[in-house]
Amino acid sequence: MNFLEEKILADGVIKAGNILKVDNFLNHQIDIDIMRQIAYEFKRRFRGKAVTKILTIEASGIAIATMLADLYDVPVVFAKKGETANSTDDKYVSHAYSFTHKRMNNVFVSKPYLNAGEKVLIVDDFLADGQAMLALTDIVKQAGAEVVGLGVAIEKGQQKGGSLLREAGYHLESIAIIDGMDADAQTITFRQL
Amino acid sequence: MNFLEEKILADGVIKAGNILKVDNFLNHQIDIDIMRQIAYEFKRRFRGKAVTKILTIEASGIAIATMLADLYDVPVVFAKKGETANSTDDKYVSHAYSFTHKRMNNVFVSKPYLNAGEKVLIVDDFLADGQAMLALTDIVKQAGAEVVGLGVAIEKGQQKGGSLLREAGYHLESIAIIDGMDADAQTITFRQL
Repeated sequence: MNFLEEKILADGVIKAGNILKVDNFLNHQIDIDIMRQIAYEFKRRFRGKAVTKILTIEASGIAIATMLADLYDVPVVFAKKGETANSTDDKYVSHAYSFTHKRMNNVFVSKPYLNAGEKVLIVDDFLADGQAMLALTDIVKQAGAEVVGLGVAIEKGQQKGGSLLREAGYHLESIAIIDGMDADAQTITFRQL
Repeated sequence: MNFLEEKILADGVIKAGNILKVDNFLNHQIDIDIMRQIAYEFKRRFRGKAVTKILTIEASGIAIATMLADLYDVPVVFAKKGETANSTDDKYVSHAYSFTHKRMNNVFVSKPYLNAGEKVLIVDDFLADGQAMLALTDIVKQAGAEVVGLGVAIEKGQQKGGSLLREAGYHLESIAIIDGMDADAQTITFRQL
């Protein structure tokens, strides 16, 4: 097991309905040492790739993106979501259905912050249905920039986001992929790579 | 002028209605070198103080909080907002009126992530009316923890947040305090300390 799988086993809580709570270290309280290790692991997995910008989506992707930007010494852009605004001259807008909140969110980035030719590494804390990640890749394409790769801390392997993105040809790196959880036994099956 | 005042003059945009847009480097695109400098500056200004946790509020405070947590080697907690949920057994809840969105937001932190006796440094990107900062201090008090200090990147000195918090006895450090802006001339008056 890697450091993140060990941390999930130690501090994650499995709830009924296939829900994994990791807000003890990843998306409410943030364990800074785990963040450092996630950032170094992405840097290692994407080694040799030129990156000019890190893109994520508010709010819980920002800590990972910031630590990784510190390693690459490039800017972060975090996409905003939930505003009712439509596409305008000054924003790239895409859409992501939130299964958690059962609503369509707008996802947008102000145009000056993504430019044609940029090499963009997209990161997020979680990948499940892939809606947010697909919206981010769409925004990068709208800007005429290149998606260098997708880095995810925890992928829920039984949901379709990972296969959608891999089949679309993206270089997706997930540090921990969960293929099964048992809320009663509090056990997790990680994908062996 | 310090590094942040220089950056605001170089890249900030003043809009009518006393609005300063700094989303080029602070709260949409994030200039990682400015983040590093903000973190080091807070560390310097609060030197000698024991800190066991960094507290901020989603979303734009998270990058600053993460860089600072990396220096202190302590966890970050980011308060969440906007949920309709009331106070529950498992959350500390406070309230902050958003003058931007003209609505009352709930601000909350899950109880396990703030404990009695902790020494909490609260940081945020902006301070204007102080509503979010007051909600965060209220949550720290509810937890029986201690507010070690408040660190703000940009304080809008003509709004009442800064004086409210200083009069309440908090050690507030704002790296840039704006005492006046002129949208036509695109000039800014910084407070001389």
